[in-house]
Amino acid sequence: MTVRAAVAGASGYAGGEVLRLLLGHPEVEIGALTGHSNAGQRLGSLQPHLLPLADRELQPTSAEVLAGHDVVFLALPHGQSAAVAEELGPDVLVVDMGADFRLRDAADWERFYGSEHAGTWPYGLPELPGCRAALEGSKRIAVPGCYPTAVSLALFPAYAAGLVEAEAVVVAASGTSGAGKAAKPHLLGSEVMGSMSPYGVGGVHRHTPEMIQNLGAVAGEPITVSFTPTLAPMPRGILATCSAKAKPGVDAAVVRAAYDKAFADEPFVRLLPEGQWPATAAVYGSNAAQIQVAYDEAAGRVIVISAIDNLTKGTAGGALQSMNIALGLDETTGLSTIGVAP
Amino acid sequence: MTVRAAVAGASGYAGGEVLRLLLGHPEVEIGALTGHSNAGQRLGSLQPHLLPLADRELQPTSAEVLAGHDVVFLALPHGQSAAVAEELGPDVLVVDMGADFRLRDAADWERFYGSEHAGTWPYGLPELPGCRAALEGSKRIAVPGCYPTAVSLALFPAYAAGLVEAEAVVVAASGTSGAGKAAKPHLLGSEVMGSMSPYGVGGVHRHTPEMIQNLGAVAGEPITVSFTPTLAPMPRGILATCSAKAKPGVDAAVVRAAYDKAFADEPFVRLLPEGQWPATAAVYGSNAAQIQVAYDEAAGRVIVISAIDNLTKGTAGGALQSMNIALGLDETTGLSTIGVAP
Amino acid sequence: MTVRAAVAGASGYAGGEVLRLLLGHPEVEIGALTGHSNAGQRLGSLQPHLLPLADRELQPTSAEVLAGHDVVFLALPHGQSAAVAEELGPDVLVVDMGADFRLRDAADWERFYGSEHAGTWPYGLPELPGCRAALEGSKRIAVPGCYPTAVSLALFPAYAAGLVEAEAVVVAASGTSGAGKAAKPHLLGSEVMGSMSPYGVGGVHRHTPEMIQNLGAVAGEPITVSFTPTLAPMPRGILATCSAKAKPGVDAAVVRAAYDKAFADEPFVRLLPEGQWPATAAVYGSNAAQIQVAYDEAAGRVIVISAIDNLTKGTAGGALQSMNIALGLDETTGLSTIGVAP
Amino acid sequence: MTVRAAVAGASGYAGGEVLRLLLGHPEVEIGALTGHSNAGQRLGSLQPHLLPLADRELQPTSAEVLAGHDVVFLALPHGQSAAVAEELGPDVLVVDMGADFRLRDAADWERFYGSEHAGTWPYGLPELPGCRAALEGSKRIAVPGCYPTAVSLALFPAYAAGLVEAEAVVVAASGTSGAGKAAKPHLLGSEVMGSMSPYGVGGVHRHTPEMIQNLGAVAGEPITVSFTPTLAPMPRGILATCSAKAKPGVDAAVVRAAYDKAFADEPFVRLLPEGQWPATAAVYGSNAAQIQVAYDEAAGRVIVISAIDNLTKGTAGGALQSMNIALGLDETTGLSTIGVAP
Repeated sequence: MTVRAAVAGASGYAGGEVLRLLLGHPEVEIGALTGHSNAGQRLGSLQPHLLPLADRELQPTSAEVLAGHDVVFLALPHGQSAAVAEELGPDVLVVDMGADFRLRDAADWERFYGSEHAGTWPYGLPELPGCRAALEGSKRIAVPGCYPTAVSLALFPAYAAGLVEAEAVVVAASGTSGAGKAAKPHLLGSEVMGSMSPYGVGGVHRHTPEMIQNLGAVAGEPITVSFTPTLAPMPRGILATCSAKAKPGVDAAVVRAAYDKAFADEPFVRLLPEGQWPATAAVYGSNAAQIQVAYDEAAGRVIVISAIDNLTKGTAGGALQSMNIALGLDETTGLSTIGVAP
Repeated sequence: MTVRAAVAGASGYAGGEVLRLLLGHPEVEIGALTGHSNAGQRLGSLQPHLLPLADRELQPTSAEVLAGHDVVFLALPHGQSAAVAEELGPDVLVVDMGADFRLRDAADWERFYGSEHAGTWPYGLPELPGCRAALEGSKRIAVPGCYPTAVSLALFPAYAAGLVEAEAVVVAASGTSGAGKAAKPHLLGSEVMGSMSPYGVGGVHRHTPEMIQNLGAVAGEPITVSFTPTLAPMPRGILATCSAKAKPGVDAAVVRAAYDKAFADEPFVRLLPEGQWPATAAVYGSNAAQIQVAYDEAAGRVIVISAIDNLTKGTAGGALQSMNIALGLDETTGLSTIGVAP
Repeated sequence: MTVRAAVAGASGYAGGEVLRLLLGHPEVEIGALTGHSNAGQRLGSLQPHLLPLADRELQPTSAEVLAGHDVVFLALPHGQSAAVAEELGPDVLVVDMGADFRLRDAADWERFYGSEHAGTWPYGLPELPGCRAALEGSKRIAVPGCYPTAVSLALFPAYAAGLVEAEAVVVAASGTSGAGKAAKPHLLGSEVMGSMSPYGVGGVHRHTPEMIQNLGAVAGEPITVSFTPTLAPMPRGILATCSAKAKPGVDAAVVRAAYDKAFADEPFVRLLPEGQWPATAAVYGSNAAQIQVAYDEAAGRVIVISAIDNLTKGTAGGALQSMNIALGLDETTGLSTIGVAP
Repeated sequence: MTVRAAVAGASGYAGGEVLRLLLGHPEVEIGALTGHSNAGQRLGSLQPHLLPLADRELQPTSAEVLAGHDVVFLALPHGQSAAVAEELGPDVLVVDMGADFRLRDAADWERFYGSEHAGTWPYGLPELPGCRAALEGSKRIAVPGCYPTAVSLALFPAYAAGLVEAEAVVVAASGTSGAGKAAKPHLLGSEVMGSMSPYGVGGVHRHTPEMIQNLGAVAGEPITVSFTPTLAPMPRGILATCSAKAKPGVDAAVVRAAYDKAFADEPFVRLLPEGQWPATAAVYGSNAAQIQVAYDEAAGRVIVISAIDNLTKGTAGGALQSMNIALGLDETTGLSTIGVAP
């Protein structure tokens, strides 16, 4: 099979990472690359790490340019995917890395994004109960946010097994690429090197309803997530520290058994051996998630920590993994669990 | 007044920071500097940033060398301070930056440190209710751990005002200097740059009982702290994200009012204006703590975030601040709220 | 003496560093702070590390606002200082941290900056032969560029002593704050962390003629400098590696003797003991320059390496040092040779 | 073809990078992994980024363990390769990533390494004139040092085309992984983050004679290299700034033409388009070298800048590339020119 793929938004970080991975995908041929303000520029000046594509030129993002491909990856600002997808027709596999089609609840969308809800597509987190089946043969995929990927993988087994109460607390550190390539003063190297800082505190970050949706569905009851994201002085990676109060009868062995079982057959999620803790460096550029669990007896809480690469498993790798499923390819094609370290 | 000060453990990070601050203290004259394996070496080769002391030579750590000073700062490995303090006699002000005299409960000490409890000294966190008065005129000071400083400052007003329930959840990121200067493979620059990772997860970090002791005393009832420390790719700084379930009737305004009141007269703690969040870079090298609060209505939690420099307010700055109080000097002498940024 | 100082351009990195240092200067009272696009904002939101000034508001940059001060620091874009200085009148000490008045040769100015030459002011590098005397009592000071500071300190003793030939080669690494606070994509944290890259290669960097001017004046003959600046993944600091072919008869001892002599009485320049090398971390936030020399016998070259903080000795510290001289104060007032490390 | 490969020294950075690349090599099966002090440990605890090998156990480094493989990679301390190689016999392809067999001149070896010279093997820098042919069918490969790789690629075309004089000046910045995984205080994250510092200044770095050997052979006459290495705050990457005085008649066009020609058919070396400069981030984890040239007319010098990943093209990638040639495989098998960025 040769799959012809286009990437809209090829000059940004998500678009660049999709291209990095597509270059290593044996069944994919890279077609049109589009941009908005960068149309007409060589990719080599925008993504200097993608040497094999250095001489490709960005075209404007339009239905004409994107037509005629088997798969179109959309790495566009929130709110722009619906119009493009409609023009592409129902036979093209559209993989949206924006937020537009992630949420099921229109009220949630409107509250957090302030515009009209475009709809809901099959959710590209195959490890989440029910998601893998929904992706098979689908022509539309909503790729999860990077934080919801890290947090949902960390906590869903605890909710699926009924180990914890409904109120989760999450503090996550993200590398700066999660904030995108737009030049903003607080993202300057001079500002972020040597500094940790929070943002979107108090339940206002847009990824919060996505976590609640994912975990609530698994729990079978409404849950809450107190989510605090922090910006860390590193280009990539998310480390999510997640916890919830343990239900009676839960102990360290029960927790470990549940997680062992949840991930036993997952190619990209690794429950680390006891005594070893996740580190973002270990998943740098890889599609793996590393997970470890603990039970704090004195505090009565289950603690789960996950590390992913926000651009790979958290965005572009998850997108390719879901594409593989949708197209009937082996889920791991073109994806790796090997990080680039140190 | 001229205070003659000695520093035991002058080659490490805590010792170096004490010296950096003492050099700017108008009432202090720096006396003996001691080390263990580095005795006989020039300070210039060990602490190349302390140019005015470059030609001073480290002496061995002994009672003879440390005798004859008004103040002795101990930056020694845990468990070594008691013996030294005893030999120095009751008239010398001994400021211990190790853990030996921080805990009140001997059982806690034995469980977390594995040796016999040496005792309890007045606790060098003047902002904590009751501490400032206990430091006045004292000849012994137990400087708090860096994490307990950040976390106690963040949460004590909430407990003092009865705003939150007894179960706190804390995730804190620390710069690598918190782990000291001993060369260990996981602290190599190659390992830590670009990486976030947790350690001491599940209630086993030695700073946990110290937090519980501080906050429980303020709350007037037993509390729990689920504490997860993480190592961040920066040399200095602690960002602590702390939360607890709000009691009925608490809202954002109530929280803000309590914190405004708690820190109104504190020279080193700044509740930031609404909309501004703490960042470790803003307190780099400074004795200030920056604090911000939020109330997550959906999750029903009060969230408090504090940023300090782990070596300054979290260790050496707190030590000097406490020394000033003990000696009857203005508490702010030789200390600054100005960070070095960017 | 109380000197009333205003800072124009207080929201940028140079302006912020001037304020950080002025806050510690015992003879200075900080007056008006001005900005352009940030006028009307609280300084606390722009320079969150300067807590004592957090509630000060930026005024627009104008002669009215800046009038009535004893000293005015200009941290403005190139080409804007002349007009402001003229309006301030001859009795105000104007310290220009821009490039406008650094070069003596109008043709150099026009070639590198593309506008008309505004003139030449006494040059704020007191250590350079002849400069200190010219600063005494002056009402105008042109603060050197950060690279020329590091390179001139490194190489002038070799030229003054006639040790090296006329063709110097310099490769320097700078922290990102040297590029200022304007948000540009290549300065994003995501781009600079983990990366070294050159810029302005081949003699086109605007600091090149300033180096040639300084060293040529000391050498007494025309010299060339092949200068390559590189951007390093750190917020602050310059490490300059400078070399030139040794003249006959020169050896390691001759070089060392010349540098010992050149800096023997300089309060801010330290020739390190043999075997110790400069590191930018050791001068972080300090006004010191650390220097070391080597003689490569096989290559026949004298190599001199200097480390400074680009914002302190390289900009704002040099500015205060020069101001002290101009005002007849002790040159070291309010300045420190102590770095913040690790 | 299935090639069975063993790696001696699998717990270090070079060994880990060889394994990372071998895992992606379609013709290689990974056999024994050996260590010294780490024998008996799981690879997962030592190289947590290599998930597919996490459960492999390190064996002791011995001829018995290494026997029975087609290729043996040696990532051992200097001076240990000769004895191992001898025991492996002449039919095994031995790829030595240590220094032992790089130098041709025994006196150079003895002066820089202080032991007896073991011999000279075909040199694993295929791009260097003459090297590719010598590697074909060879059973022994001496992988170049990381700095000599970056510098030789940068300067050999200038010497091959007779563009520059015999005295080269090189200043190179290296990521910390170049210093290996041994825990030394000056390599701690606390020390290296935020700091640039030189080492091995004045011609004493052990990679100097290797550069001189490579470039002198191309030049056909003795040359000198004034080499200054610096340690940069990043885990990986080398940026080498290399220059030499231009011979008469040389200008920018001549230089560019020579480099265009030298690298036209090289799969791993990219002369960047004019106006674009190498950055280490763009080759992170890739086997590519990015190169740019400039001619400084005022200084009369040719400047060449190269960026490589010290562990990939500078060590393990170069090793695999050379192995491919020796085994008669396509030179690019299992290697990529795509970096992981941002």
